[in-house]
Amino acid sequence: MISATTMRLNIDPILIQALQEDISSEDVTTNAIVREKQSGQVSLICKESGVLAGLDVFSRVFELLDGDTQVEAFANEGDEVRQGDLVAVIRADLRALLTGERTALNYLQRMSGIATHTRELTQLLSSSKTRLLDTRKTTPNMRIFEKYAVKVGGGDNHRYNLSDGILIKDNHIDAAGSIAKAISMTKEHAPFVRKIEIEAENLDMVREAVRAGADIIMLDNMDLDTVRKAVQEINGKAQTEYSGNVTREQLQEIADTGVDYVSCGALTHSSNILDFSMKNLKKID
Amino acid sequence: MISATTMRLNIDPILIQALQEDISSEDVTTNAIVREKQSGQVSLICKESGVLAGLDVFSRVFELLDGDTQVEAFANEGDEVRQGDLVAVIRADLRALLTGERTALNYLQRMSGIATHTRELTQLLSSSKTRLLDTRKTTPNMRIFEKYAVKVGGGDNHRYNLSDGILIKDNHIDAAGSIAKAISMTKEHAPFVRKIEIEAENLDMVREAVRAGADIIMLDNMDLDTVRKAVQEINGKAQTEYSGNVTREQLQEIADTGVDYVSCGALTHSSNILDFSMKNLKKID
Amino acid sequence: MISATTMRLNIDPILIQALQEDISSEDVTTNAIVREKQSGQVSLICKESGVLAGLDVFSRVFELLDGDTQVEAFANEGDEVRQGDLVAVIRADLRALLTGERTALNYLQRMSGIATHTRELTQLLSSSKTRLLDTRKTTPNMRIFEKYAVKVGGGDNHRYNLSDGILIKDNHIDAAGSIAKAISMTKEHAPFVRKIEIEAENLDMVREAVRAGADIIMLDNMDLDTVRKAVQEINGKAQTEYSGNVTREQLQEIADTGVDYVSCGALTHSSNILDFSMKNLKKID
Amino acid sequence: MISATTMRLNIDPILIQALQEDISSEDVTTNAIVREKQSGQVSLICKESGVLAGLDVFSRVFELLDGDTQVEAFANEGDEVRQGDLVAVIRADLRALLTGERTALNYLQRMSGIATHTRELTQLLSSSKTRLLDTRKTTPNMRIFEKYAVKVGGGDNHRYNLSDGILIKDNHIDAAGSIAKAISMTKEHAPFVRKIEIEAENLDMVREAVRAGADIIMLDNMDLDTVRKAVQEINGKAQTEYSGNVTREQLQEIADTGVDYVSCGALTHSSNILDFSMKNLKKID
Amino acid sequence: MISATTMRLNIDPILIQALQEDISSEDVTTNAIVREKQSGQVSLICKESGVLAGLDVFSRVFELLDGDTQVEAFANEGDEVRQGDLVAVIRADLRALLTGERTALNYLQRMSGIATHTRELTQLLSSSKTRLLDTRKTTPNMRIFEKYAVKVGGGDNHRYNLSDGILIKDNHIDAAGSIAKAISMTKEHAPFVRKIEIEAENLDMVREAVRAGADIIMLDNMDLDTVRKAVQEINGKAQTEYSGNVTREQLQEIADTGVDYVSCGALTHSSNILDFSMKNLKKID
Amino acid sequence: MISATTMRLNIDPILIQALQEDISSEDVTTNAIVREKQSGQVSLICKESGVLAGLDVFSRVFELLDGDTQVEAFANEGDEVRQGDLVAVIRADLRALLTGERTALNYLQRMSGIATHTRELTQLLSSSKTRLLDTRKTTPNMRIFEKYAVKVGGGDNHRYNLSDGILIKDNHIDAAGSIAKAISMTKEHAPFVRKIEIEAENLDMVREAVRAGADIIMLDNMDLDTVRKAVQEINGKAQTEYSGNVTREQLQEIADTGVDYVSCGALTHSSNILDFSMKNLKKID
Repeated sequence: MISATTMRLNIDPILIQALQEDISSEDVTTNAIVREKQSGQVSLICKESGVLAGLDVFSRVFELLDGDTQVEAFANEGDEVRQGDLVAVIRADLRALLTGERTALNYLQRMSGIATHTRELTQLLSSSKTRLLDTRKTTPNMRIFEKYAVKVGGGDNHRYNLSDGILIKDNHIDAAGSIAKAISMTKEHAPFVRKIEIEAENLDMVREAVRAGADIIMLDNMDLDTVRKAVQEINGKAQTEYSGNVTREQLQEIADTGVDYVSCGALTHSSNILDFSMKNLKKID
Repeated sequence: MISATTMRLNIDPILIQALQEDISSEDVTTNAIVREKQSGQVSLICKESGVLAGLDVFSRVFELLDGDTQVEAFANEGDEVRQGDLVAVIRADLRALLTGERTALNYLQRMSGIATHTRELTQLLSSSKTRLLDTRKTTPNMRIFEKYAVKVGGGDNHRYNLSDGILIKDNHIDAAGSIAKAISMTKEHAPFVRKIEIEAENLDMVREAVRAGADIIMLDNMDLDTVRKAVQEINGKAQTEYSGNVTREQLQEIADTGVDYVSCGALTHSSNILDFSMKNLKKID
Repeated sequence: MISATTMRLNIDPILIQALQEDISSEDVTTNAIVREKQSGQVSLICKESGVLAGLDVFSRVFELLDGDTQVEAFANEGDEVRQGDLVAVIRADLRALLTGERTALNYLQRMSGIATHTRELTQLLSSSKTRLLDTRKTTPNMRIFEKYAVKVGGGDNHRYNLSDGILIKDNHIDAAGSIAKAISMTKEHAPFVRKIEIEAENLDMVREAVRAGADIIMLDNMDLDTVRKAVQEINGKAQTEYSGNVTREQLQEIADTGVDYVSCGALTHSSNILDFSMKNLKKID
Repeated sequence: MISATTMRLNIDPILIQALQEDISSEDVTTNAIVREKQSGQVSLICKESGVLAGLDVFSRVFELLDGDTQVEAFANEGDEVRQGDLVAVIRADLRALLTGERTALNYLQRMSGIATHTRELTQLLSSSKTRLLDTRKTTPNMRIFEKYAVKVGGGDNHRYNLSDGILIKDNHIDAAGSIAKAISMTKEHAPFVRKIEIEAENLDMVREAVRAGADIIMLDNMDLDTVRKAVQEINGKAQTEYSGNVTREQLQEIADTGVDYVSCGALTHSSNILDFSMKNLKKID
Repeated sequence: MISATTMRLNIDPILIQALQEDISSEDVTTNAIVREKQSGQVSLICKESGVLAGLDVFSRVFELLDGDTQVEAFANEGDEVRQGDLVAVIRADLRALLTGERTALNYLQRMSGIATHTRELTQLLSSSKTRLLDTRKTTPNMRIFEKYAVKVGGGDNHRYNLSDGILIKDNHIDAAGSIAKAISMTKEHAPFVRKIEIEAENLDMVREAVRAGADIIMLDNMDLDTVRKAVQEINGKAQTEYSGNVTREQLQEIADTGVDYVSCGALTHSSNILDFSMKNLKKID
Repeated sequence: MISATTMRLNIDPILIQALQEDISSEDVTTNAIVREKQSGQVSLICKESGVLAGLDVFSRVFELLDGDTQVEAFANEGDEVRQGDLVAVIRADLRALLTGERTALNYLQRMSGIATHTRELTQLLSSSKTRLLDTRKTTPNMRIFEKYAVKVGGGDNHRYNLSDGILIKDNHIDAAGSIAKAISMTKEHAPFVRKIEIEAENLDMVREAVRAGADIIMLDNMDLDTVRKAVQEINGKAQTEYSGNVTREQLQEIADTGVDYVSCGALTHSSNILDFSMKNLKKID
């Protein structure tokens, strides 16, 4: 599901770095015990139920260590996996299997944890038109993996970073002097393909944002009654995004306001991992 | 608490990379609105109670963007902070403050989340001699930050990576043929300053490990009764580490077995963040 | 005009690389002749009339070689400069001045050449509402400089790269099966802040693009009569961009069709440089 | 024509960087529309007459994205190509073809533009012994490509950079105190394989340079009559290089002075591109 | 003997850099003379007797330049080779063979020189239980190669670097205030898998180190009589390392003191190379 | 003596890498014991007589760790230093002094060792016009330091690498078909500032090389009688370089043949280090 070009250009360099973080000179234990090239295989087992995400990344870690790695997968990205499931069998040089295990699992577990969390929340929204968004509250140097996992889980991605999306926050508005001025300065400066999003904290700000031509209005930490009024007032002249602390319980209620999007930082900053392990390593001829 | 040499050699390159992940060409919003150098300040506010960790890293993000950054701190690493506390005031070029905010917070929130989690668990162990350890189940390219946060929270660090510690796991034992053989191959190969740790799953394995001269024996997923017997049998001839799923409830009971260390992967793979925000940005002259 | 944060994060690494391209071991001539630190100054002189762009980059080259560099500027970014104008005086270690000269000028001359070219064309459009756009036909590893120069010259920037803008071309449409399908696949996949732009070659395609909800329609190599009809038919339901070989003569005529934007690859792929030289180097105490 | 070792060591890292400039997270459009590996092909078509240069680089861009890329070429480096010519067919993963297109063309067009320009000028010199040289007025981080293109066009390369050639300019002479002193300081400092070139602005300087043992004398911005006298006076005791603004018209006249070399910065700083496009993309089985 | 994972992660990047040090733009001589891909072979000949080390690294240099390189080896790592021995035949693109020769030999010669030196000294120790250690007095950016060569020669590796081993020196003791305090501060701070080594200069320091729980005591520049007493006093409660200027003559005498280890900086800082050359290059079909 | 621009562009990145080789996560010992910034000083003492080289590099290591480092030097590059001499006092953060010590000394000792060796040999040549040259037999990733040390010791540098000098060896001649052809192919391909050097093994080859217009002829492993004849035959039409195993005893005799240069690989591949140590570390206020 991750394209080969993305893998080569944007992911491989980060994986290499992660491997070098874990192996600064050599894997002493493995190199002590396996002294020659020896083909082997190992099973990837799911240890708790959830949504699989990151199997390509997991596999790529071994491929970077051994170009002849072969991965036989029994589940696809986005599949629900259950405790005890055999997810894949990986065949490679034993040393690659032993050395890459922890790094590969660290990616897979985090990505599947995020996908699982996202799936839970998007299912709560499934009867509404409201879509779930991630944020930039990602782990540093993990964004490409975490935003991908959100999509596997059924969520949508907000902007990737500060360069590819405009979001005018309260501090920006203060610095500009007014909403109108902030929007016009941004339109003048930004590449013409950018949508302009702006944060609004009350109905007056919402109205001013609409007048100034905002493409997206973030309804920030408003009570749901105000959100409902804001959505009615905006009436399709801009897209709407609800932002605030989002609990499972509240999610349906937020959707009922008619807002287009709900964003949720916790997807990437506070998901638990989904547990997997590598078992039954054995030599093959 | 992070030494200046560690910061320059081992942390700065990662922070630069994290900033470039968030700013691939420029911060379009900020550059549109703040077009000239303008000194400003902003307050770092704590939004939930916990343990502060990573303030140096948070500050360094701004220093890398503006060499004249000044940080006035009102709390120290390891302090307990409470919702609403003013933790620091940061003074720098407004553009550095706006552009660096998310990356700086992403580090601070994760590191403080880990320290908070660690503090909770170490306090449960405070009446015993058993110490809490982290693992290699860290977020890729975040290890230096996450292991440091564990120490701020009162935990101890296990090995840093595959190059600086020996841990012979079941798969290694299989590959070597026996515990004795695995230990002797490792002693022969590893730098002489390495301790040899080996995983044991039952008392027979424990006995063989002691005989073979292991420095540390990991008691892996044993029931607590067996752990107690293992500790008695080892009787100081090796250090002991309990490894398995560790819950808050069980922690005291584990310590009562007399084991030297308990390791806990969740510290780094499943801690929630501790929430902070940057507020009251204003220009200064 | 380039923010300090952009300079540090996104420009410095490229400048260092450019300097290393020119100095793979050392500047043999300069190091042979100037053997000790010696302060000096040199004048930057304009050698043909045009628009100044890139003075910050020019200066930064010397600052990277000598942290104590001081640049006294007599013109601002975007100013029209004339042959013989003294544009700036640079004071630094003589060796930095001699060693950095060519790299600094190579940037300044290209950037000013592009700004000059852009200014000429935008002036031809000044009485219309049509705006001039750049493209991705930039010199590899020079995009941040070239797109900035277009803005200094009065043009607007199209998307920065393949990651931050959607542009569905004929080949993409073929691969998707239809315009409608291409647009819906893209909306499903892309971060929600992206506008969707699509290439159309005739009025049928224009109509289909409007129906499918395109945000921007590129009118690709159409005759001007068709462009006019397309603009009328679109009637504000999407933004319009004219793309094709654009000559100075034709530019007003294109604008008269009512199109919102004209894009012009030649701005970045075929502008001549604007000539500058560094003269009157002398020692100072 | 570019050797495989040069490609791997000196070119691949730059191409990767150029691709990452264009794809900072992923190619959103292509990845939205082509979701699985799908073999395809596309034709490289020449759109204006000129000299082909950079086909290896163009091909390499796709190989870096897809290791299975195959390029069938119908023209060779240095060939004259005409509008409409089918230059090559490229077969690879459709996503590699779509994602790499612009970067590959950006290299090919610039390199062929420079080769075309160089060919024109060298043909004007074909009846004389005078050779055409490039300069260090290249685009930053493009030098290896641009100097190669000059050679494809029939020109010669001057020094590659400040480390591999000595060129004593007026400022260096001032700093040294005299021509003789500058030459002797340089001889003392430089690796013994270096030739010493020095700039001379009049016949006195020429004479002093000859006496001091210069290997090459650059006749800088002299009128052609003085150049002729200089060449006669030097009489083979040093090589001679004419430097100044060189127009097509003047070139034969310069050659008639008997100078060995003419250098021309415009080859690399102000050549127009040669236009190519990629057409007829289709899936193959 | 070097594992494939170590090669890919920890060695390849250094070899690439070494090749780029030697080829900053291209190998001008080779590219001038061999203009097309042409398979060839060359023989690696030993020119003086010693111990072979680094053949994998030597081969890897060519593989990085030409993925189709094949190396037929007639000797193994650690073998004694004699003047005139044919050590290997390398088959690859002629240009790879010519371009990589010097870099490949520079590694092989240094590594074999170190292995030869180490073998000589370890043979002098062969009748004792004392083992020979290397130090951190390695050549910058060569440590992974030099420490490996020591092992090939029969020596043991001391810590790899400052991060993976504790060694408390006199300056650290001064800074801490006492041996006891230095050891306790270190135990508190260091990862729990670290052994603590401390330098002692006299018997009082030795006793204090034992009491404070040092794992290893370095007997630094002591006369041999004191060393003997120290070893007796320590009596197995810590490992012992002799450090000082070690001559061939003295080595047996040092071993007779009963010390566990002798460390010797000269192995890596002052070994002569072992001479090899590449001969009989010829084309093959 | 190393220029500030060379240090910043070409040396700093290598020093950073060397420091990271020695400190992959942190300096555990130092950080355990010195927990706060604390100014200190340490003395650099010479431990055996020789020629000082690399003091700038030594100092730079500490400056990179602590920007406020101050070095008070009591000797200059190229000075003869004697055992016990106080060479410099370094003041910096104690942690920088402790952490940087080994890396700084590793550079200083190697560079001074090479300078000392070179000085010995050049003094043996002092009554002749023959100059001593280094070779490319340098330690990988150490060339810039080692070639500089040769110059400090009074030697001359041969070409820096394969890109900046032509040296046609026997294998190249074979590949080209003849000396004449090799020289003409090289002249055609190489940048025009390159001198052409060619290896000759007998007088016939010498004559052919002169006829073909070689700039430098390397007399490779000839007996001295043949060398003398070759020099007479060449008679100034090319420069001459003697290459072969050079012993101290033979050096004067080689010079007596009238050869211009003698090259000696041992300068960089087999010099012993010159011993220095850092002593008397103490805190300052």
